[in-house]
Amino acid sequence: MSDTYKRIVLASRPSGAVSPDNFRLEQVPVPELADGQVLVRNHYLSLDPYMRGRMNEGKSYATPQPLNEVMIGGTVGEVVASRNPKYAVGDKVLGMFGWQEMGVSDGSGMQKVDTSRIPLSAYLGAVGMPGVTAWYGLNRIIAPKAGETVVVSAASGAVGSVVGQLAKMAGCRAVGIAGGKEKCDYVVNELGFDACVDYKAASDPKALYTMLKEATPQGVDGYFENVGGEILDAVLSRMNPFGRIAVCGMIAGYDGEPLPMKNPQLILVSRLKIEGFIVSEHMDVWPQALSELGGAVAQGKLKFRESVAQGLESAPEAFMGLLKGKNFGKQLVKLI
Amino acid sequence: MSDTYKRIVLASRPSGAVSPDNFRLEQVPVPELADGQVLVRNHYLSLDPYMRGRMNEGKSYATPQPLNEVMIGGTVGEVVASRNPKYAVGDKVLGMFGWQEMGVSDGSGMQKVDTSRIPLSAYLGAVGMPGVTAWYGLNRIIAPKAGETVVVSAASGAVGSVVGQLAKMAGCRAVGIAGGKEKCDYVVNELGFDACVDYKAASDPKALYTMLKEATPQGVDGYFENVGGEILDAVLSRMNPFGRIAVCGMIAGYDGEPLPMKNPQLILVSRLKIEGFIVSEHMDVWPQALSELGGAVAQGKLKFRESVAQGLESAPEAFMGLLKGKNFGKQLVKLI
Repeated sequence: MSDTYKRIVLASRPSGAVSPDNFRLEQVPVPELADGQVLVRNHYLSLDPYMRGRMNEGKSYATPQPLNEVMIGGTVGEVVASRNPKYAVGDKVLGMFGWQEMGVSDGSGMQKVDTSRIPLSAYLGAVGMPGVTAWYGLNRIIAPKAGETVVVSAASGAVGSVVGQLAKMAGCRAVGIAGGKEKCDYVVNELGFDACVDYKAASDPKALYTMLKEATPQGVDGYFENVGGEILDAVLSRMNPFGRIAVCGMIAGYDGEPLPMKNPQLILVSRLKIEGFIVSEHMDVWPQALSELGGAVAQGKLKFRESVAQGLESAPEAFMGLLKGKNFGKQLVKLI
Repeated sequence: MSDTYKRIVLASRPSGAVSPDNFRLEQVPVPELADGQVLVRNHYLSLDPYMRGRMNEGKSYATPQPLNEVMIGGTVGEVVASRNPKYAVGDKVLGMFGWQEMGVSDGSGMQKVDTSRIPLSAYLGAVGMPGVTAWYGLNRIIAPKAGETVVVSAASGAVGSVVGQLAKMAGCRAVGIAGGKEKCDYVVNELGFDACVDYKAASDPKALYTMLKEATPQGVDGYFENVGGEILDAVLSRMNPFGRIAVCGMIAGYDGEPLPMKNPQLILVSRLKIEGFIVSEHMDVWPQALSELGGAVAQGKLKFRESVAQGLESAPEAFMGLLKGKNFGKQLVKLI
């Protein structure tokens, strides 16, 4: 084992879009373990849209990521040294070690995971934070009834793909919105959504609305929002009375562009309920959600796809790609 | 008793703002009563913002008002002839007879009211639909806890004045938004709100935000929306995490102007819940709400103010004034 490892810190805050010089790669020594500590070799780093919000200063939906510290992020890996009786070398663990190849912990903030039926990387996706995010927004905010229509944007992504599959299991019509024919084909043919709207094929907002209307002949009862902007405007116009919108992300606005909602009167006209949420504030649902998600993955009922970038050095570019929708499924960085 | 009476029908739909030629005054014969019918002489007609929505064609939050039929509206009056054993001449009744001096009913859609402790006109305001609207939005959507800050727009109006007073009774800081010093003084000095922002004194959105910030030093936990537009934008920016917004009206947008919500990202950033509602779809709460509101009015704990226009002919102008905020308190038309 090398006596150094690599990590990436936040070097500067983005003004507008994220750029490579917002990050700095560092090589640091592997620390000596104190009593009670565990050393983890991270196998996969999770890249998620929420990280973009953390890179900004000031009020966002979470504490800003400090400058010159390791970028925040979920990881899965393997214990390679332990002075903690609860962890043995070889244990597979989920943690929040961030953008780095190794991590040290006293055991808090990490947990062992069972990889006998579920692949290690899935604990960063369908059986992890993104999966629980989908589960919470769908079950606790949209609360769909069988026969209703549920729409989700960023439908081929880590969260959206789970939303649609869970909606199908609940007896709903599941309609995705995604960018490009390849993603839409995947959403329908592999994940089993009933339809998918390729927003990149829409020349203007009216065309987008028309495509969405064709995909949702009975209107929309539940919408899981990952994107915002013109897509939100289009879906709002299709909402049925008493529709519910779970606002999970507005990735289109992360770089600070103005993103107005064109017609908020529809909230009243259609008597909508719109609710924003952050899954880490609802820890009470995690055990039930993870149990259901893990069971469905183990049984092959819940499918997912991963975009895997190789090596820590590739993380900034992969992250910038994620924000532009270049990933296809859960974006990971393989660190080993 | 005259053998004719006056009524106002919808002559044409507004394009943009409502104008007098959208209405037509008619003189019609008093009908002969059939068996089971009741003839009511209306004393007061209620004018309410929702009527503006009904004047438009197409999708709104209710069925459009048909052309050449009597304008919809709540009324209170007195039975002047009865061939229905359940009603006697002299009974005071609440009904939906619309913009006309008299009304005929088989008894359905009307109810007797007790005027021994509550003035007849209050059944169109604080102890009627506007009061229940306030009660529902506050108790069922905002659900305020003692110590929280509740803001309401159109604060001196029929709905807003009740919202703030109920919020005070619930132990909250109540902050109004109203147009003009006179209305704001009334809201604070007569109704007992803690503060009131005069939006007409704000030169631009930033000034409005600053005034609102001063009035809500602890931020805003609940917002009761009657107006929309720039006022909604300003309040959104003051919302605390997990704030609730009850969308009751967006009067600023009734004439079809675009009314975008500038920063819907705040729904996510502040994890807000926003819900539109129409009180007539929640009939289950009416008995409880009316009982509480009636008790509070009878005991003098719930105050209200009325703007009374004289004579049916004055209804169109009074209604146009209401839509521009020219009324002060509940807008009524006295018909007798």
